[in-house]
Amino acid sequence: MGDVNARSLALHEELSGKIEVVARAHATTAEDLALLYTPGVAEPCRVIAADYERSWDLTRRHNLVAVITDGTAVLGLGDIGPAAGMPVMEGKCLLFKEFGGVDAFPLCIDTHDVDEAVRTIQLISKSFGGINLEDIAAPRCFEIERRLKELCDIPVFHDDQHGTAVVAAAGLINAMRVTGREMGSLRVVISGAGAAGIAIAKLLLRMGFGDVVVCDRRGAIVEGRGGMNEAKQEMARISNKAHVTGSLADALVGADAFVGVSAPGLVTREMVASMAPDPIVFAMANPTPEIMPDEALAGGAAVVATGRSDFPNQINNVLVFPGIFKGALAARAPQITEEMKVGAAHAIADYVPASELSREHIVPSALDKGVADVVASAVAACVR
Amino acid sequence: MGDVNARSLALHEELSGKIEVVARAHATTAEDLALLYTPGVAEPCRVIAADYERSWDLTRRHNLVAVITDGTAVLGLGDIGPAAGMPVMEGKCLLFKEFGGVDAFPLCIDTHDVDEAVRTIQLISKSFGGINLEDIAAPRCFEIERRLKELCDIPVFHDDQHGTAVVAAAGLINAMRVTGREMGSLRVVISGAGAAGIAIAKLLLRMGFGDVVVCDRRGAIVEGRGGMNEAKQEMARISNKAHVTGSLADALVGADAFVGVSAPGLVTREMVASMAPDPIVFAMANPTPEIMPDEALAGGAAVVATGRSDFPNQINNVLVFPGIFKGALAARAPQITEEMKVGAAHAIADYVPASELSREHIVPSALDKGVADVVASAVAACVR
Repeated sequence: MGDVNARSLALHEELSGKIEVVARAHATTAEDLALLYTPGVAEPCRVIAADYERSWDLTRRHNLVAVITDGTAVLGLGDIGPAAGMPVMEGKCLLFKEFGGVDAFPLCIDTHDVDEAVRTIQLISKSFGGINLEDIAAPRCFEIERRLKELCDIPVFHDDQHGTAVVAAAGLINAMRVTGREMGSLRVVISGAGAAGIAIAKLLLRMGFGDVVVCDRRGAIVEGRGGMNEAKQEMARISNKAHVTGSLADALVGADAFVGVSAPGLVTREMVASMAPDPIVFAMANPTPEIMPDEALAGGAAVVATGRSDFPNQINNVLVFPGIFKGALAARAPQITEEMKVGAAHAIADYVPASELSREHIVPSALDKGVADVVASAVAACVR
Repeated sequence: MGDVNARSLALHEELSGKIEVVARAHATTAEDLALLYTPGVAEPCRVIAADYERSWDLTRRHNLVAVITDGTAVLGLGDIGPAAGMPVMEGKCLLFKEFGGVDAFPLCIDTHDVDEAVRTIQLISKSFGGINLEDIAAPRCFEIERRLKELCDIPVFHDDQHGTAVVAAAGLINAMRVTGREMGSLRVVISGAGAAGIAIAKLLLRMGFGDVVVCDRRGAIVEGRGGMNEAKQEMARISNKAHVTGSLADALVGADAFVGVSAPGLVTREMVASMAPDPIVFAMANPTPEIMPDEALAGGAAVVATGRSDFPNQINNVLVFPGIFKGALAARAPQITEEMKVGAAHAIADYVPASELSREHIVPSALDKGVADVVASAVAACVR
């Protein structure tokens, strides 16, 4: 790890920025200047002023996403501020281009005030075709996203919530297939009630998973429990039909699947052994999972997935966000709907050929550049 | 002109965006992902969190300028709104890259409220190395720029003011040379008291031009006159030492130089004839100048310049802004100072070799890609 850090720092020093803005035409002659800038540029301006829709074909916004953070929840580093969050945002933009062909531009907003963040993003939104929110702490991320979806006429997508939810759902679909389960009877326990945990729970419930229990540090989220913010109260209302109470260990007894988006080491071999036969274990805390794969397997896990590239079944958002935005932009979707997310999850799951599907291969490789196209097609197909 | 418009629109449709965001490294292997994104990217984040200055070498901001408008004064089109202003902003970004090698990214802010515009730009400023304000109506542009210069730790530069002022000053320096004049005794009449006119007057006075009279629609700006906003009142205090009153025609009698940043046709052949012998006429209204060059010459003008590429002596901001920001970014200047603007004006003037200097060649060609480097050097030399 120390080595990865040192090499990453050296690479960042060498690159001096992981993205770059380039010109799509050259200004060499007087004619170039006259057409690309004044006086000719007045004409596309007039055309857009008369018909706002033309901004989609006369400027770059048709392929352009803003990657925006307030720097409050950058990786596992917490609130490190706007400038320090930028390497992650630039990295995200690089992945947008490399995997989806989507132009993405990083912006860090220097405020902790929800109203200000919302207003700032709203005021710049007409420069873009979509907005990818990133690394914004829960629960403020929920309100920022909800309000922006109301205020903006372009897709707004908090990747830490929905990208994670879609790829986790895709993995669960195939984990069910290889363990011979049915969605409607599956009981899933989620560890972590932040942005990702809440979003995963909502998507799984929407897709028809049997039941979902979300656990935070105090244990299972259930109606009547104390210490719950608004998002957790909503979760208590819509999940945990069986009213499971107690700790994460209590919730896991007899569960079919564990999905961890929480912290290292929260799950033991014994807890896995207490689950239903052939349990599914997604230990996605980064970089150190809730339980290491060898321990989970020793506890009897049938399928183990992590967020890491050095184990089988890497559950990585890069399988989702390039294709989600590629499809939404191509279809000029005004928002990313629940239906699109469900479609994306199935597209990712179905991308793994039946002949290759196995306990150690439930999701496509994070490096597979064919995934974004099938996700994009599934997303665009949802736009009428 | 109709032809230019049609061809420009067709080119914009073909290009679908004049700029593009590209990746500076490829994500092909697991190692690439680990170093460019997680987990390695955490290290440059931590380094910047510990030392803010490192954001200049670990992210792209060292070469990155935001081109920002509120869409209130786009070209001569007026207040056409944020989406319709974007073709101009993209064009500006293209010129930044083509002429200065500077990455520039366009943003249109959807508000007419000065406080909101200032706050929005301040909150995103740490994502950039500089801010180029563009096409913001006077007098609000003065307040927006003044406040942002106080609030931001990076250069803030309103090109419509200062880019125009620098290139006009450069042209005047060489026009003086070819007509055998001295700066200290030169009397300049400026037509137009908007962003450009006020900024040109201030820069010329700072540089030591003998006297400057600024005229708005009501005539010469002079202490005690009515109908003046705050910027014009300041102008009345610092310019027009001789207390010239009356119309533009009155002010021009005996003047050495005319600089127009106003409207078509305001100057007649007779008005030029009333100026001092061998007068200098910069008729920079776009696309139709205050007086056409043939008329000005017929009135006795010794040197005529316009904003147009189809006449000699094109006074074009593209000679200024790429080099100004290239130099400021290279030197990590916290702001663009008056000294830098003066240095840039002299650098542009001196770029025309003495052997080539003539009444029809007082400024470099707008297409000359060597100008930005000499401007950048002059600007960087001002940073201690």
